Amino acid sequence: MKTILIGIAGGSGSGKTTLADRLVEKFGREEVSILRHDSYYKRHDDLTYEERSRLNYDSPDAYETELLCEHIKKLKNGESVEVPVYDFTVHNRSDKTEHIDPAPVIVLEGILIFADPRLRDLMDVKIYVDTDADERILRRLKRDVRERGRSIENVIGQYLTTVKPMHELYVEPSKRAADLIVPRGGQNTVALEMLIDRVQKQLKIIEEMNRE
Amino acid sequence: MKTILIGIAGGSGSGKTTLADRLVEKFGREEVSILRHDSYYKRHDDLTYEERSRLNYDSPDAYETELLCEHIKKLKNGESVEVPVYDFTVHNRSDKTEHIDPAPVIVLEGILIFADPRLRDLMDVKIYVDTDADERILRRLKRDVRERGRSIENVIGQYLTTVKPMHELYVEPSKRAADLIVPRGGQNTVALEMLIDRVQKQLKIIEEMNRE
Repeated sequence: MKTILIGIAGGSGSGKTTLADRLVEKFGREEVSILRHDSYYKRHDDLTYEERSRLNYDSPDAYETELLCEHIKKLKNGESVEVPVYDFTVHNRSDKTEHIDPAPVIVLEGILIFADPRLRDLMDVKIYVDTDADERILRRLKRDVRERGRSIENVIGQYLTTVKPMHELYVEPSKRAADLIVPRGGQNTVALEMLIDRVQKQLKIIEEMNRE
Repeated sequence: MKTILIGIAGGSGSGKTTLADRLVEKFGREEVSILRHDSYYKRHDDLTYEERSRLNYDSPDAYETELLCEHIKKLKNGESVEVPVYDFTVHNRSDKTEHIDPAPVIVLEGILIFADPRLRDLMDVKIYVDTDADERILRRLKRDVRERGRSIENVIGQYLTTVKPMHELYVEPSKRAADLIVPRGGQNTVALEMLIDRVQKQLKIIEEMNRE
């Protein structure tokens, strides 16, 4: 089976997850598998909760990217993988894993996936979702307070001390590696449709290959 | 016949013409018609050559956009149009016209096509080709000296007094109106392929409509 990897990057709160989720909704998990770089945050059993909460989660060092690369290669090779499940409430990897089966299309999403050449080299299409910084922080604030139980002060502190500087240092410059930049993330229906067409084309190619 | 209009904008020297030309090459003029905003520069028979050469050609006022809108509507309506031919060597519209037949896909290219809401409203897909300013001026310099017989000093003077300020005032902000941003213009094969797929899809839709 010929598998393609579509990378969807963009700053925190840019709408990249919405775009990735729309693709999965459209085609279903048997056709489109989703991987998130965040699932590969490093395990830190050696640190206390306090120490872990002060770590920089917006730098390329925060991720176990070797394991992600290994998993992508396995999926492209037709093998299933066990993806780590990260627990954001305790800032550590949990003992659970999520079973992911190979699929014709793999979508990988994350803020820093274009910053690492090992990941870039595995991608067939690189999409960067570009949304203004003010809209991004507002979306992040709502998510972290509502879904991850953080306080407003905690979110603002983390944003100003690590999220914003790391965005400017690593995420924004990695936009140059993109094949296509999508403005206005989740609301951009023209871009979503073109991405859907790209996936559809891939599924047809694979269908024809299987028929032969 | 259902016709779609694909707008390709971007700064001077961004590679938007290359991208538009690639689409025409791929499908041929019967399938893909091309319109250029530059063909609609206003006629200035009332001014001398010297006066015309000092005009600002990078502002929305320089164009007869009403005529372009009228032509687009005619083409969408299945009628042919006579597009004015602009003579860059004398800075004026010539008396020649180019006969353009209606086609399933019309590509419109120009630096300011997203700056005018009347044009934007006629477009189905809006692509902005984004290339760094230094690479753009180098490409423009080569073109204007080699193909348009200008001196280096003349090109640099025009660039600094009108092209650059107008780019910052009108072109760059119009990027926000784009559905997709294409970095690295003519060299971006992944973006070109997705655009080709979009055109192919449109041609199929029309073929099926005609068959019914």
